[in-house]
Amino acid sequence: MHAVIMAGGRGTRFWPRSREKKPKHLLDIVSNRTIIQETVDRIKPLIKPKNILIVTGRKHARELMRQLPEVPAKNILIEPIGRNTAACIGLAAVHIQKKAKDDVMVVLPSDHGIGDPERYRTVIAAAARVAEKENTLVTIGIQPTSPHTGFGYMEGGASIGQVAGHALLRVKSFREKPDRRQAQAFLQSGNFFWNSGMFVWKASTILNEIERFLPDLYSGLMTIKSSLGKSSEAKILSTIYKGLTPISIDYGVMEKAKDVFVIPASFGWSDVGSWDALWEISSKDGRGNALAGGSQAIFESTENALVYSPNKLVALVGMKDVIVVETKDALLICKKGRSQDVKKIVDALAAKKLTQYL
Amino acid sequence: MHAVIMAGGRGTRFWPRSREKKPKHLLDIVSNRTIIQETVDRIKPLIKPKNILIVTGRKHARELMRQLPEVPAKNILIEPIGRNTAACIGLAAVHIQKKAKDDVMVVLPSDHGIGDPERYRTVIAAAARVAEKENTLVTIGIQPTSPHTGFGYMEGGASIGQVAGHALLRVKSFREKPDRRQAQAFLQSGNFFWNSGMFVWKASTILNEIERFLPDLYSGLMTIKSSLGKSSEAKILSTIYKGLTPISIDYGVMEKAKDVFVIPASFGWSDVGSWDALWEISSKDGRGNALAGGSQAIFESTENALVYSPNKLVALVGMKDVIVVETKDALLICKKGRSQDVKKIVDALAAKKLTQYL
Repeated sequence: MHAVIMAGGRGTRFWPRSREKKPKHLLDIVSNRTIIQETVDRIKPLIKPKNILIVTGRKHARELMRQLPEVPAKNILIEPIGRNTAACIGLAAVHIQKKAKDDVMVVLPSDHGIGDPERYRTVIAAAARVAEKENTLVTIGIQPTSPHTGFGYMEGGASIGQVAGHALLRVKSFREKPDRRQAQAFLQSGNFFWNSGMFVWKASTILNEIERFLPDLYSGLMTIKSSLGKSSEAKILSTIYKGLTPISIDYGVMEKAKDVFVIPASFGWSDVGSWDALWEISSKDGRGNALAGGSQAIFESTENALVYSPNKLVALVGMKDVIVVETKDALLICKKGRSQDVKKIVDALAAKKLTQYL
Repeated sequence: MHAVIMAGGRGTRFWPRSREKKPKHLLDIVSNRTIIQETVDRIKPLIKPKNILIVTGRKHARELMRQLPEVPAKNILIEPIGRNTAACIGLAAVHIQKKAKDDVMVVLPSDHGIGDPERYRTVIAAAARVAEKENTLVTIGIQPTSPHTGFGYMEGGASIGQVAGHALLRVKSFREKPDRRQAQAFLQSGNFFWNSGMFVWKASTILNEIERFLPDLYSGLMTIKSSLGKSSEAKILSTIYKGLTPISIDYGVMEKAKDVFVIPASFGWSDVGSWDALWEISSKDGRGNALAGGSQAIFESTENALVYSPNKLVALVGMKDVIVVETKDALLICKKGRSQDVKKIVDALAAKKLTQYL
């Protein structure tokens, strides 16, 4: 079994901590390990580091190697340019085929948090068993705990049975990010699951589906595959990638494929998608105040605050629903519930050419 | 004419900028000059630096000398211990009598802001003329612009006439900090003025009043006076001060004295008493956001914010009515309107023995 960790994201919503040079997964936001270190730590008991591939961009490869010394350097696959998840996953699949003929690959985002890693591994192992036996696309669906409008949803269909104590369903439909009303309905029905972006399948299975639904990508991947290990490898990779149309695996393959299964699961998943999400998963005092990163704070008449300030004492007076993030050169004060708009700050900085803060 | 600048306050409400070692008047909060530098700059065209006395505590004398090189070192009068304003003013009066037999003394707080210094000087000059001629206690009363509950008020009485174009009234009564309803009534009546803590009188006049209403203080001051310039001066000052009962000039003398005059004035006075007061006197953008100390900020859906962060870029998202103050080692986030409670943070720091932040 192989793991493929997709580490191409930028995570601008974690500004001012996340920067172009240090996207979210390279930061120690949730614990004193970085998010990608936690991702590797979590899957390691199931998949040896020599079988963990990480797909990333050139800028972050060195830092990844530094953070993950147990992962062989050759397992860090560098995309010359980001072309969304279909290309990323396809590239990993051809590398796996080259290395192991065919194998189950567990595709994992690099930047999610999991509250119950043991349960998480049993679900992954169960999904791998199905993918191996049935040659199908298997997804992990997260039981929603709120009517979240920031995630895609999967609708559960016919039951296929049980695998290692976990339900296995056919996916009836994929739904893009819903509006509030729809999300409420999804939550109430009990039959919709968050698309976690975790996929389990054999390399051959996904390549077959790519061949069917994304033939141009497939043909590019085959050219890349035949160049692997040759002197032309880097040049061909670069040429092919330039010509690829960016498309997500969800939109390009999953929504169109016939046999997609889902294992509904609950293991304390969080996409750690924003400072708000970090507040959600943080432990809080009786008034809802959370400290991250070993911060020291004094709360006076203050509720539901998240403070990340490892270097300075923070005092809050009369504040409610606020996120405070302090870094070496920048400071963010954000109303809780508005942290999606941190992206706008990054856009404003770019527009003002304040590149040192990007 | 002499000026007496009272520089004994601590200004804890400007934490985290104000610290035990650097009280408010030693900080450049309003402009790039410190508040006491502005106070001296403002009175200098009227009173030469050699006639400006500054009364302070031992801890801050050196920094005062550094900030005010034009004021002779011997004009920095050091109180061995703070004993409130009656003692402070009495001490200055005996020094002035020693130096100039008798003279008008203009008593000024060290830590106020004035929007229109020229107008301010014409009022002071007019008050000095009255004090010289009439041998009375003259106060400057600020025309209130809001029903402020944080100031004492003076009620205007009979008109004494005009002096250099300024009205001169007898003070009918002194009123301590009113409640909201009372303050509203004061504001509406048009006949109540904020007690600015600025007083103008001859040294002999105030000493006579002290003799009458605070005989113990008077006798101590006379002992001090006779020791001035002698080797015993420091020791006697210390002994006398230890035995003094702290009392304010307002409570100890002004409220009891018979002939107290007031010149009502409007010259953009602010006590700069809190971060809220600083927001009030700061220039703001169209959404009420103010930058102090050369701060750089990006405001996203943010209104009525005050940002003091000279060293770090600050981004605010979805915030309303907030004060953000950044210093080398501490950070304050305070709801606008709550900055009186910054004092509670200082108390909490003391209780937690986090003395490095005091």
